[in-house]
Amino acid sequence: MKWVYIEDIAAHRGQDVELRGWVYNTRSSGRIRFILVRDGTGILQATIHSESEGDPLYEKFDSLTQETSLVVRGRVREDKRAPGGFELGIREIDILQAAEDYPITPKEHSTPFLMEHRHLWLRSRKPHAVLQVRAEVVKAIRDFFDGRGFRLMDTPILTPSACEGTTTLFETKYFDQTAYLSQSGQLYNEATAAAFGKVYCFGPTFRAEKSKTRRHLIEFWMVEPEVAFAVLDDIIDLGTDLVLFILERVLSQRRSDLEALERDPRPLEAIAKPFARLTYDEIVPRLQAKGSAMARGDDFGAAEDALISELSPGPVCITHFPAAIKAFYMQPAPERPDLALGVDFMAPEGYGEIIGGGQRIHDPGLLEERLREHHLPAEAYAWYLDLRKFGSCPHSGFGLGVERTVSWICGIKHIRETIPFPRLLYRIYP
Amino acid sequence: MKWVYIEDIAAHRGQDVELRGWVYNTRSSGRIRFILVRDGTGILQATIHSESEGDPLYEKFDSLTQETSLVVRGRVREDKRAPGGFELGIREIDILQAAEDYPITPKEHSTPFLMEHRHLWLRSRKPHAVLQVRAEVVKAIRDFFDGRGFRLMDTPILTPSACEGTTTLFETKYFDQTAYLSQSGQLYNEATAAAFGKVYCFGPTFRAEKSKTRRHLIEFWMVEPEVAFAVLDDIIDLGTDLVLFILERVLSQRRSDLEALERDPRPLEAIAKPFARLTYDEIVPRLQAKGSAMARGDDFGAAEDALISELSPGPVCITHFPAAIKAFYMQPAPERPDLALGVDFMAPEGYGEIIGGGQRIHDPGLLEERLREHHLPAEAYAWYLDLRKFGSCPHSGFGLGVERTVSWICGIKHIRETIPFPRLLYRIYP
Repeated sequence: MKWVYIEDIAAHRGQDVELRGWVYNTRSSGRIRFILVRDGTGILQATIHSESEGDPLYEKFDSLTQETSLVVRGRVREDKRAPGGFELGIREIDILQAAEDYPITPKEHSTPFLMEHRHLWLRSRKPHAVLQVRAEVVKAIRDFFDGRGFRLMDTPILTPSACEGTTTLFETKYFDQTAYLSQSGQLYNEATAAAFGKVYCFGPTFRAEKSKTRRHLIEFWMVEPEVAFAVLDDIIDLGTDLVLFILERVLSQRRSDLEALERDPRPLEAIAKPFARLTYDEIVPRLQAKGSAMARGDDFGAAEDALISELSPGPVCITHFPAAIKAFYMQPAPERPDLALGVDFMAPEGYGEIIGGGQRIHDPGLLEERLREHHLPAEAYAWYLDLRKFGSCPHSGFGLGVERTVSWICGIKHIRETIPFPRLLYRIYP
Repeated sequence: MKWVYIEDIAAHRGQDVELRGWVYNTRSSGRIRFILVRDGTGILQATIHSESEGDPLYEKFDSLTQETSLVVRGRVREDKRAPGGFELGIREIDILQAAEDYPITPKEHSTPFLMEHRHLWLRSRKPHAVLQVRAEVVKAIRDFFDGRGFRLMDTPILTPSACEGTTTLFETKYFDQTAYLSQSGQLYNEATAAAFGKVYCFGPTFRAEKSKTRRHLIEFWMVEPEVAFAVLDDIIDLGTDLVLFILERVLSQRRSDLEALERDPRPLEAIAKPFARLTYDEIVPRLQAKGSAMARGDDFGAAEDALISELSPGPVCITHFPAAIKAFYMQPAPERPDLALGVDFMAPEGYGEIIGGGQRIHDPGLLEERLREHHLPAEAYAWYLDLRKFGSCPHSGFGLGVERTVSWICGIKHIRETIPFPRLLYRIYP
């Protein structure tokens, strides 16, 4: 009998098939027994309804406990009353392993308890739905860039130098040297962009930040496109198209997961081009007028994220930051060198920054000056300076954080639920 | 005028367009001047042919040096004599930055010199072609698994415990604890496979190995599928289909890159199902008969990789290894518990192992025994044991190394050229 997956069940209507999975739940109604079987791709109602009360299937049914692994065989029937529209009429059950005292019961558990059992919690409906959305977001991102001629460049994790200061870096011994875990592939992709025109990297990044907020992870995934000859406006367009592409994909492909999460899709469906766009100096007084305590030169906090959302139903793009609060490599604005040609995309509904990027310095003299001002070692950045010596050109890029994007799309307040095994302050198990 | 990329040039036949790129090479023939312009997506011949000898374009042409960044505007013409079949009749040239003394000239350079200038070397034709193939291989892998219903699960890099011993691990301080850089996402994906049925992770992995061979990298990318309820034969089929899918994709999409690399495509085209399959105990005497000095219980070395290639024109699958030389989690063969149900896929042409995997232990008692035998700490593996307590089932998976696969497909003898910025023993710059 053919082993099939529940997500493909409609293609096997009327056929005898084999399912391999786990007991999600059971119930009885008169002579009928219902087993909700989950196989990782879906949940199917399988039923026992025998002429004979002594049918050994009833006995097997009685022994089933939550998360018992089993193989069931039977015929696929269309049934409007069954969840999903199909059910399996069971003919045989093979129990592989009876699970005893599965720790995650249908009752409420505390988040620390669930996090400690993350390896099992992933089987529950909500974490399952979040990670399905995550996989779709990642695929959408890759399809977006691959479809626009961007070349994937896997930039190194082990790096000799720091992209944005050393205080939040993980350090490791690298034979006779010291290496740091990368916080961004950007510097490397400035080199590959000069070789391939349009590139992106997409991998894990690391910040040893001692901050315990609901939007920080120690280890998170980021996609970073970099485009030779692009200026700030070009990458604002690119980021806008990317966000819309991701939304469209999730809304069309992962509707049932959003439903499982009780995520209202309407605020997502309403988002369209162009996104609202304001400079830092335009937005700060507007936030202050709404009650924000931030001063010019401050970064946005959770309170500001919420206030920014009041300005537009879609993401808000903030540009032209004070150069002093941005990274050393940011291109200054032509007539206001105290402002940096950077951009942050702030998600709606108070979810905060999902994209950060901008135009990079292309003048070798200015870059050397900035390296000195930031006390960055010239030898470690020699190769980076080379990019400005040999065919320098304006270029721009950004980073989009996967977990923050998934968090926003799923309507999940804490980012720790958007990655299979979150790494948090002091938490590294399981 | 519209900025276009060279790879799209055929769509702009007869139009006036703008190219942004770098000078790859120049030459003159009578009154005609040729500039080979590269923009990262291709190389196009652009020509100056003026009625007037005093045309300022001639003066600009004379100032052009290798890797000078520039913008050229003109009309796209079909021309059978031009490489690629198209050329640009130049009307305007804007020089952005004249490159002086670009270190990588068309003459021969030593590999250490090129590696030291990897950030620039990537612009040269051969490294460019290798990394285009790499990007295609990665995309093929993701399309293969996404298309078969596998869910992407990004497993953590920072882990509290080691997958296969601690001697080759990078270590870092994780707040008040110690973390290790992951060598495999497998253990975590045994958990996610029980939640999602079919999963894969695909990310960087790290081995602090003090070996300096042409097939080892300190940091490399690996894709690792894991399938609940799958046994050894199932994942041999899966690995076979994956390898054929990758080959078909590269042969159809990246033909010109293989040509640039002077890679004979015929040995790749000849590969078909089923792959040759032998047990370890069958293959060792055959290798010894061919002159190998290996004894039973040894791993295969470079000499054996070459000899194995003589057995079949396609990959060779080796199964049933002595359990003693394999990882603690490997399922023993039913009637020969001294043999492990593992599989290695050996690439043709002596390129060595590209896939390693097998069936995992699903019996909780046996796994506990193995953890004790290998002196692995029970508390760190408590979650891993849980997977055998709550609905355990047979399950299998493998890892495919991206760089070794690219190395084989491109016909590149040293793996260091298959990743943008290789991390090698003592090398971490640039």
